[in-house]
Amino acid sequence: MVSTLPAFAVNRNILEMEYAVRGPIPRRAAQLENQGMKIIPCHIGNPQALGQSPLAYVRQVLSLVEDPSKIARERVLKTVFEETSLIDLRESDFVPDDVISISEHILKRIKAGGTGAYTESKGERFIREAVAEFINKRDDFENSGGVNADPEKIFLTSGASEGVKYVIDLLVAQDNDGIMIPIPQYPLYSASIKKAGGVQVNYYPDEDSSWAFDQELLEESLTKARNNGINIKGIVVINPGNPTGAVLSEKSIRAVIQFAKEYQLVIIADEVYQENVYAGKFVSFAKVLGADEVPLFSMHSISKGFYGECGHRGGYLEVRNPPKIQGSALDFVDLLTKQASVSLCANTAGQVLTYLMATPPVEGSESHRQFVREKEKILNDLEAKATMIKDAFTQMEGVECFGKIGAMYLFPRLKVLPTGKTDFDYCMALLESTGLCTVNGGGFGQKEGTNHLRIAFLPPQELLSQVLPEWIEFHKNYVG
Amino acid sequence: MVSTLPAFAVNRNILEMEYAVRGPIPRRAAQLENQGMKIIPCHIGNPQALGQSPLAYVRQVLSLVEDPSKIARERVLKTVFEETSLIDLRESDFVPDDVISISEHILKRIKAGGTGAYTESKGERFIREAVAEFINKRDDFENSGGVNADPEKIFLTSGASEGVKYVIDLLVAQDNDGIMIPIPQYPLYSASIKKAGGVQVNYYPDEDSSWAFDQELLEESLTKARNNGINIKGIVVINPGNPTGAVLSEKSIRAVIQFAKEYQLVIIADEVYQENVYAGKFVSFAKVLGADEVPLFSMHSISKGFYGECGHRGGYLEVRNPPKIQGSALDFVDLLTKQASVSLCANTAGQVLTYLMATPPVEGSESHRQFVREKEKILNDLEAKATMIKDAFTQMEGVECFGKIGAMYLFPRLKVLPTGKTDFDYCMALLESTGLCTVNGGGFGQKEGTNHLRIAFLPPQELLSQVLPEWIEFHKNYVG
Repeated sequence: MVSTLPAFAVNRNILEMEYAVRGPIPRRAAQLENQGMKIIPCHIGNPQALGQSPLAYVRQVLSLVEDPSKIARERVLKTVFEETSLIDLRESDFVPDDVISISEHILKRIKAGGTGAYTESKGERFIREAVAEFINKRDDFENSGGVNADPEKIFLTSGASEGVKYVIDLLVAQDNDGIMIPIPQYPLYSASIKKAGGVQVNYYPDEDSSWAFDQELLEESLTKARNNGINIKGIVVINPGNPTGAVLSEKSIRAVIQFAKEYQLVIIADEVYQENVYAGKFVSFAKVLGADEVPLFSMHSISKGFYGECGHRGGYLEVRNPPKIQGSALDFVDLLTKQASVSLCANTAGQVLTYLMATPPVEGSESHRQFVREKEKILNDLEAKATMIKDAFTQMEGVECFGKIGAMYLFPRLKVLPTGKTDFDYCMALLESTGLCTVNGGGFGQKEGTNHLRIAFLPPQELLSQVLPEWIEFHKNYVG
Repeated sequence: MVSTLPAFAVNRNILEMEYAVRGPIPRRAAQLENQGMKIIPCHIGNPQALGQSPLAYVRQVLSLVEDPSKIARERVLKTVFEETSLIDLRESDFVPDDVISISEHILKRIKAGGTGAYTESKGERFIREAVAEFINKRDDFENSGGVNADPEKIFLTSGASEGVKYVIDLLVAQDNDGIMIPIPQYPLYSASIKKAGGVQVNYYPDEDSSWAFDQELLEESLTKARNNGINIKGIVVINPGNPTGAVLSEKSIRAVIQFAKEYQLVIIADEVYQENVYAGKFVSFAKVLGADEVPLFSMHSISKGFYGECGHRGGYLEVRNPPKIQGSALDFVDLLTKQASVSLCANTAGQVLTYLMATPPVEGSESHRQFVREKEKILNDLEAKATMIKDAFTQMEGVECFGKIGAMYLFPRLKVLPTGKTDFDYCMALLESTGLCTVNGGGFGQKEGTNHLRIAFLPPQELLSQVLPEWIEFHKNYVG
């Protein structure tokens, strides 16, 4: 039956928006999977989909918070277990004492007493306080001369993405408003700018210098855009870099801040990979900013690091020096709050996990040792997997790879491709041949004339040992 | 220190957007609460914030799904408990067998094996299948001649709100695109249309006829808007009504469908209160639509009904007859999928609860009896509380109240107010005097010259017995 409905005109920004990490290559992978092929999903940083286990502590607490009626029972069971040997269970089947007390603490502090009620639009105040303390401690403001985080300027969000969208939606006031983003970038930024109806203004960190950039490079891009009538409002920085894996030096961060100050821009700092650093050291924008007045929006998430709790959609947005608004007594924080209020609040399970990320088990607590063991295992494993993949690249003609420094990705450059073929063709063929689902460099943006791919280094080592030789073989045949 | 930053120009749509249920009255309530006043939060349908308990079954399952390592233990504990009497616990401290098997079933069906991974953008396929079956069964399509729901046209969303925003963002292609909404309305609609840059076109159900409306009334509003150059794309219907509590007759639903067909509009049907009907009967748009080709977007949520799981942000959007798109081979479902993909996916705890809403315990299962008991208690209690409040209105001069028919709200009309005072003043004064936080009719829109307020009938009966006499006293003094 042919539909008799007329075709609808829709929002062109949504029609034109692209989001490669859920684009044609992953869609083809889903088709192949339905046809029975084994797919290795490396197109997205989704650790638990590739076998990474959640931290025991985190899930033990969440489980009790979701069913508080089990807390009293847990206490009784522990006593019974310790006093008798009748139960056919091991000590590890019972939760540590601090899990019980933290769960009770959370339930007592949640304003409505549990996870079933809407929270404040910004998220539970006690969790925002914990996030503020987490930031203060991380950046050692007491000794570094920085400004303590303000819980009223922290928003608990659905992953980091929601915070990014709020900020970009707000910044774009008219269609010549531009936001600078690094190329390559995580496509959330290009998609959000397109959706908001603004202009994406690219700047190009230098691949040959470990993706570094300086103020001059930023100014070049800004000047060119201004000459085209674009009104630049902000600059996005992703540190550690996605997809590049580069970690910014304090000097580069200082350059961004100086640049933003001179040209009166806001800084949007995506810092979700701050725990994923395998060389060098993560330094936050908040720390380098110090008492400076440049507006800063920084995001963090429970999805990455060693938590990998992507599905729970938790994260936060921290605002510093919110600008005043033309023609209004309100400031950015007020308007972000209004945006958050239309979604009512971030989901409470994600809020609880954000709290747990901000307050890991303290040394000496019953959970601490296991927590540290799991954390180290995950981070060491990530690094080992990155090394395996990077080593495989050395056996592929024309594949040059920066990294492994930070984040969860390698972004090798493909210098040799058959005539007429692009990185997209390469990734599609790699998928069809090996089941490895990656995303081509074009999905993130790249300097014209270059070809890359992004791979999340998440598959288990045993799986990598199987598939990497297949990839090397594929590559040999493909580039011929 | 005065900020030296220049004021920023921001998105005017966000600046002008209003959202009364998180507006000035609730904000004042938060201030008073911080000053030590006891506030009764009736400004929003947030049942668990007012003491409604979550369903035991739902939380028992969620708790095990979040910590799967406890499932084996649960089995052992049950056996030990049944075989010995050494444990100082009651049978009710253990979860029913079907909780264990459903938890295992969910974990087996979740593609990544647990809640920590991103799901498909639309949500887990098995949950979308369960939602489709829920709709098919609810509407008895087999016997009613309707069209079965298609899991590929179902989106699991963060509450119902996210689905509404996706649809409205997509529909508004230019600034004279209009969407019809009932007045009074839930302010999510006015806010989303404003945010998307479209035109809010009001239609006015007739309060004196139990908020009924017919096709003529809709046409009147449409014609007036068209004459002003507005291009109407869709019509929103909230059934049961928020804030009115009215439940649409099949005849009214048919009128909306006929109207949408004639004028080639899409229907956006907010059906989140479908379980909250105290008189009459809920009939869904999908059922009345039958095999008709009018595009229908309908939303449901875990936040309302008897679940009240607001904080977990779960819900779904079902699409029927998605329109084709001008200038594109894609249809609405493709573009909604793209929008969902930029948020990655709805949170997994909310998805699991949506699954449980779609598949309540079956008769004969161990959980069934308790589930039904809890459900009936909650729904009976809601009705009793609505009655208490409605009865109190009869003792207030000039307060006329339609209802209690559906949803969680009463929306009394205030016919007598002191000269110069509005319903906003009344609600503010009521808050300051009694701690009762309501929202004035203006927050939802109302016919010019009328005054109303919305109250969620959620406070415990004991609390109502205390506060209602205070309200009656306040009213006497206020209208004086």
